[in-house]
Amino acid sequence: MERVAVVGVGSTRYSGAQEKTEVELFAEAATEAIGESNLKPADIKALFLGNALGDFNEGQGMLQAYAADNIGCRNIPANRYEGACASASMAIRDAFIWVASGFYDIVLAGGVERAATMGTGLATRTFAMFSDARYEYPAGVTFPAVFAMLAHLYADTYKIPLPKLREQMARVSIQSYNHGSVNPKAQFFTKNANMPVEKVLGSFVVAAPLTLHDCCPFSDGASAVVLASEAAAKKLTDKPVYLTGVGQASGGPLVTQGDFLPRLRAREISSRQAYIMAGLTPQDIDICELHDCFSIASLIAAESLGFFEYGKAGEAWEKGEADIGGRVAVNPSGGLKAKGHPIGATGAGQVHEIVKQLRGEVEPERQVEGAKNGLTDTLGGDGGTLVNLILQRGW
Amino acid sequence: MERVAVVGVGSTRYSGAQEKTEVELFAEAATEAIGESNLKPADIKALFLGNALGDFNEGQGMLQAYAADNIGCRNIPANRYEGACASASMAIRDAFIWVASGFYDIVLAGGVERAATMGTGLATRTFAMFSDARYEYPAGVTFPAVFAMLAHLYADTYKIPLPKLREQMARVSIQSYNHGSVNPKAQFFTKNANMPVEKVLGSFVVAAPLTLHDCCPFSDGASAVVLASEAAAKKLTDKPVYLTGVGQASGGPLVTQGDFLPRLRAREISSRQAYIMAGLTPQDIDICELHDCFSIASLIAAESLGFFEYGKAGEAWEKGEADIGGRVAVNPSGGLKAKGHPIGATGAGQVHEIVKQLRGEVEPERQVEGAKNGLTDTLGGDGGTLVNLILQRGW
Repeated sequence: MERVAVVGVGSTRYSGAQEKTEVELFAEAATEAIGESNLKPADIKALFLGNALGDFNEGQGMLQAYAADNIGCRNIPANRYEGACASASMAIRDAFIWVASGFYDIVLAGGVERAATMGTGLATRTFAMFSDARYEYPAGVTFPAVFAMLAHLYADTYKIPLPKLREQMARVSIQSYNHGSVNPKAQFFTKNANMPVEKVLGSFVVAAPLTLHDCCPFSDGASAVVLASEAAAKKLTDKPVYLTGVGQASGGPLVTQGDFLPRLRAREISSRQAYIMAGLTPQDIDICELHDCFSIASLIAAESLGFFEYGKAGEAWEKGEADIGGRVAVNPSGGLKAKGHPIGATGAGQVHEIVKQLRGEVEPERQVEGAKNGLTDTLGGDGGTLVNLILQRGW
Repeated sequence: MERVAVVGVGSTRYSGAQEKTEVELFAEAATEAIGESNLKPADIKALFLGNALGDFNEGQGMLQAYAADNIGCRNIPANRYEGACASASMAIRDAFIWVASGFYDIVLAGGVERAATMGTGLATRTFAMFSDARYEYPAGVTFPAVFAMLAHLYADTYKIPLPKLREQMARVSIQSYNHGSVNPKAQFFTKNANMPVEKVLGSFVVAAPLTLHDCCPFSDGASAVVLASEAAAKKLTDKPVYLTGVGQASGGPLVTQGDFLPRLRAREISSRQAYIMAGLTPQDIDICELHDCFSIASLIAAESLGFFEYGKAGEAWEKGEADIGGRVAVNPSGGLKAKGHPIGATGAGQVHEIVKQLRGEVEPERQVEGAKNGLTDTLGGDGGTLVNLILQRGW
């Protein structure tokens, strides 16, 4: 297997509702990634595109064919991946194997979504389809409710009084808002810095105990990455970031997790695959972009990824151990909470952030100095899909 | 790269509207394929699932996670591919590379759809989303209209009087109906055999010059294949069918084809990739399952695949050269026209048929004797995605 490098990244700013089509949004991210790679569209051998709801939100199915054509990548193989919020990470993992196998030397991967443009009503109803259509959402359980129940279960499992857990969760959101406020690509750029705990706790209740500030927004946006073989990468950049570990796992309806909850088996299986493949342990990770669709999701994820003991992630956030300068910098981009969550693009946005961080190219206020190893974590639905990618500085 | 074999196949009968969910339909095909491979669900390392409209037709997104769990393939990586009618072929091509690269030894690929259950109205509207959402279907052009226009263009380009072309097209449908009538997996099993040309020409007009009998039906169904490395295959079966060539290409809005029409660039690029990879030419192909969504589509496809000269495919059908016993046996399953077209499953159904044919396991009336090399051809939309797969007898 060949080593695979990220040689270029691009991203739109994540935002609320806007007027560009998904084809146009993706073009913005893709042309940035291709240009940064010192390549032209004709150099791209294949496209791997994450997109969850393009057919629902603007009536365009088979989006990847039009996306490829629109950026001048004529007649290349183009795949669309749908794994709910993990769609783009799934696409990048598949792009990885086409390069690792030696079949292609240079490919484009990424994702796009206009979740904000859909409006809250349609977005909530269509998102719900990414839980089990037989037993879950028909019972009225949308994702805020799922994570609200996980918060209660987390509090009970680890014997943390709910008011205490709510404060810990608030710390997660506050940290993310602070990072997002200084990230020009973030939906909440210049907004929500230094939010008091009381404001988080006192915002309107979405699904108890989750308030508005425990929940990520719906976003529009696109992100893209160019992957290349090691040989090609060496000709294109002196700052290659190697994709050294990939992991993916699936899960059925949440009830199949049984007593394993509030943990998700798919995450622990997936991250283990990625760590083993990269030859790293959680202790080696300097920076992690994880799937904080809700603040409680950050605590659960950070523990399953091996950063903190089970039940202790909230304390870690309180002590700054999950912040820049701490044990591991979690979501220095602002994460889904503050950077935004254009679902089919989110995983590619995570890779965009890690690559920029490893290169030392982000804003000084949120740069993780000397970071060498990064991890992404993307969750689709309530455990249906988990993808983890490990990226390492190659110079 | 490792050689990749198909070691087992399974398929539901393709049908009109029925009551099983897509998870249940896929389970029927998948368990047959796994059982035929002398494997158990726990042996399957990953799932690659084609599905175009599961979110629209039964409100289940991220179907692959529930499909994997339901057949006992717990926590394996599971991807959903959407490339309109080419979704399953796209999934199989990606499954191929994960095995060819040596990453996995045994994987499951396939597709499922309940296009018939959607009803004609919703199916027609949602299918239209697989053309360009800016310039095509908003102008009122659904797929019957696209292929009707291609029929007119074909007649004009090759100087075939339209009444003559209509008779040639009728021969395509008649041949497919005859094959489907003796295929127990076909939607039109026991139906429509020996239909007179006059009945085809005289059936109601869908989009002139296409009549009802020029058009494939909407179908429910699922098909699955197990792919294995050569080493694994040798332990599992004495009749391995090797997947020796894969090709895929994309296209933008139909207008970008310009003067190339009625041919589609994506097909000629994709099939060339597959031929070169397999080291075969069109003359080597004994059997072909091609994308006959409309009878005119068969003529266009058979020429681009290299079987007949441009403008001569209609004559070939009239002379029986595209029939069992002729130059190349086209759609001995009955094709989309008579076997049926559950869009996200269709490409896997084509592979199912080729594998059964190469093994000599189909009904005697439609068995292509001594067939060694087979080709599939799957079209997504009006040229947006083309996938070709070449399968060869391995004993």
